[in-house]
Amino acid sequence: MALSKKPVNGMKDILPEEMQIRDYVQQVIKETYRSFGFTPIETPCMENIANLSNKQGGENEKLIFKVMKRGEKLKIAEAKEEADLVDFGMRYDLTVPLVRFYANNANDLPSPFKALQMGSVWRADRPQRGRYRQFMQCDIDIIGEPSNLAEIELILATTTTIGRLGFKNFEIRINERRILKAMAAYSGFPEEEFDTVFIILDKMDKIGLDGVAEELAKEGYAKESIDKYLALFEGVSKAQNGIKYLADTLQGFLEPEVEQNLQEIIDSVEAAKTADFKMVFDPTLVRGMSYYTGTIFEIAMPELGAACGGGGRYDKMVGKFTGNDVPACGFSIGFERIILLLMESGFTVPMQRPKVAYLIEKGCTSEQVSKVIARAQEERVAGKQVLVVRMNKNKKFQKEKLTAEGYKDIVEFYKD
Amino acid sequence: MALSKKPVNGMKDILPEEMQIRDYVQQVIKETYRSFGFTPIETPCMENIANLSNKQGGENEKLIFKVMKRGEKLKIAEAKEEADLVDFGMRYDLTVPLVRFYANNANDLPSPFKALQMGSVWRADRPQRGRYRQFMQCDIDIIGEPSNLAEIELILATTTTIGRLGFKNFEIRINERRILKAMAAYSGFPEEEFDTVFIILDKMDKIGLDGVAEELAKEGYAKESIDKYLALFEGVSKAQNGIKYLADTLQGFLEPEVEQNLQEIIDSVEAAKTADFKMVFDPTLVRGMSYYTGTIFEIAMPELGAACGGGGRYDKMVGKFTGNDVPACGFSIGFERIILLLMESGFTVPMQRPKVAYLIEKGCTSEQVSKVIARAQEERVAGKQVLVVRMNKNKKFQKEKLTAEGYKDIVEFYKD
Repeated sequence: MALSKKPVNGMKDILPEEMQIRDYVQQVIKETYRSFGFTPIETPCMENIANLSNKQGGENEKLIFKVMKRGEKLKIAEAKEEADLVDFGMRYDLTVPLVRFYANNANDLPSPFKALQMGSVWRADRPQRGRYRQFMQCDIDIIGEPSNLAEIELILATTTTIGRLGFKNFEIRINERRILKAMAAYSGFPEEEFDTVFIILDKMDKIGLDGVAEELAKEGYAKESIDKYLALFEGVSKAQNGIKYLADTLQGFLEPEVEQNLQEIIDSVEAAKTADFKMVFDPTLVRGMSYYTGTIFEIAMPELGAACGGGGRYDKMVGKFTGNDVPACGFSIGFERIILLLMESGFTVPMQRPKVAYLIEKGCTSEQVSKVIARAQEERVAGKQVLVVRMNKNKKFQKEKLTAEGYKDIVEFYKD
Repeated sequence: MALSKKPVNGMKDILPEEMQIRDYVQQVIKETYRSFGFTPIETPCMENIANLSNKQGGENEKLIFKVMKRGEKLKIAEAKEEADLVDFGMRYDLTVPLVRFYANNANDLPSPFKALQMGSVWRADRPQRGRYRQFMQCDIDIIGEPSNLAEIELILATTTTIGRLGFKNFEIRINERRILKAMAAYSGFPEEEFDTVFIILDKMDKIGLDGVAEELAKEGYAKESIDKYLALFEGVSKAQNGIKYLADTLQGFLEPEVEQNLQEIIDSVEAAKTADFKMVFDPTLVRGMSYYTGTIFEIAMPELGAACGGGGRYDKMVGKFTGNDVPACGFSIGFERIILLLMESGFTVPMQRPKVAYLIEKGCTSEQVSKVIARAQEERVAGKQVLVVRMNKNKKFQKEKLTAEGYKDIVEFYKD
């Protein structure tokens, strides 16, 4: 079979220029998250297929790259369906593996456990421009903290990181799954229809209030419910304090502690924040994953139509593995979007080693070469980046290329 | 289906303690290799299955985790063999993907191209203690440098890195595929039997000279060939300079430049080395991969029976993708073995941030919590790692655990 130069369809090679920015961003992220007491962990890139197909992953479960059984376990002739042929799958996010990790290792972990994960995930989406089937995710999670201290620390850690990368004037949009549900219940939508209502609500930023009304009507919901529902959103936008307005209006539908809980998060973050951003209550924020149980949030960048990170509380997921619920909350940075924004803005990595190139003429004796290399070793120890290469016949072109690669200082060594 | 707490069979979760060491080692590796002008790149973890099954990977090709086709392309009822069901595979090393990367991107890369790769690879080996089916590899390669400048720089870069990690008194064993072949030809083994002879030779360190003789005899080779072959190894061990002895003895079988080439590598590395190690010519060194064409080398640690890294020259592999051969040479560090050795030696990561824990009593108002968090933010900016947690009822136990985790400084905040 012919060998293919291309990466597999929908995945990409990362070249030195982008890689340098990725490495720098990863380092800033790790360094900042560590200062908040998050500890890095890693899980295998594959999980048992049952763990990935338990309905926690929503739509992502349709996009799993599946790994075929091997050896005697693989019985192609007898296979009737995919499940007969497959034992593992590539992870589609870092949350399911984290929860499995926690269930597996809880006895050896501090409580609360503050985890940092940076790793690739895979989704067999239809390939499209700027969207890849292998991409990096970068998550922090706090497992075992029931109070909103978790949300506050997660939002502060993430915004501090984003701020250190030079982003300004962004927003953290925040909402609560319980507010979402109370608004739908108050408006009279049947509980089994909530998910459909939320999928439509999620399009608000694209199709507006009228578009949402239209789509809800198309689904056949009562006009009274739709009117009541939309009036709530209009009420929020007119209110001094949208959270207070909803808490007052939704009495009997909304747990009373939700208002105070959400307000505390917003106030504490505003009081302690170090980056240039705003906390914004957004009752139209839905977040797709079905595992969220409380607070949900998203980073919105002015430079970007879409969100570039998000997360929320998922208090019921650990229990699926252990039988005992443990409170949990996480925040994921949209690493690839951050990189894209930095690349587009012409970002250059700060504080690099000075770059020196040594050109050795062909025909130098091995003693001469040894001396050049020994000198390079000294300069490297002294903090420089030293490239040692053979001098080309077309030295001028070679030097121009090296200069373009950032080698400002070029030293030539000729044979005696 | 029940959810499994365990990682998939043969792969492992990495806990905070090990992760801290891994992060540190990765950072030292990257930093050192960068000082030598190596630039990080990344390729997808999957490759088209044809690229992984082209006989370059030797035994590893039998250990591929294969990824099943998806959607309409997957036709289970019609499938007769694995190949009908599979389109991608998990990479089993970083060399095949590097060469594909180079073939795909050569126009955008400097020449010579000095690549640094750190990434996971997968091999469906039978799980056994200390050996995992997903593990990290860490490779540097120089593509486009025909001279031994490549070998010298690779060995210096790798040994400098290993030295910075605190290892001493190790050896770099070096040999040449052309010497291996010349020794076998001189002894009268038929060329098509060379690989079998080398597989037996490779066991020398385990079964000794007599064991090798015995196994060669068992294969049915002529006694005369075996005697001549073994006499060569005895000759090397008695010689002042084993390389010179072989060059003299193997005249007519060995290209004349091999002696000088190998001697220059050894001399230049000895002259410029900064770490505490020795260069050792070892004519029994084989290295399994069939793609090597010239120099081959290995790191041998006194603490370890086995090698913990190796590499060599593979001048014929780029041509398999592009039709034009380009000289190439690489060195891979056995990352997992390095980590294991460091863990076993009780290694602790140097220069960490001072760790402070803030305990907040339950019942503190949100204003109080805000103040504590704001103070934590200040300390983080000032360079400390600050953990903010709720005070437990059993405060004494909580503080003991935090102290054990390295939080030497614990500050308590009580409600007013």
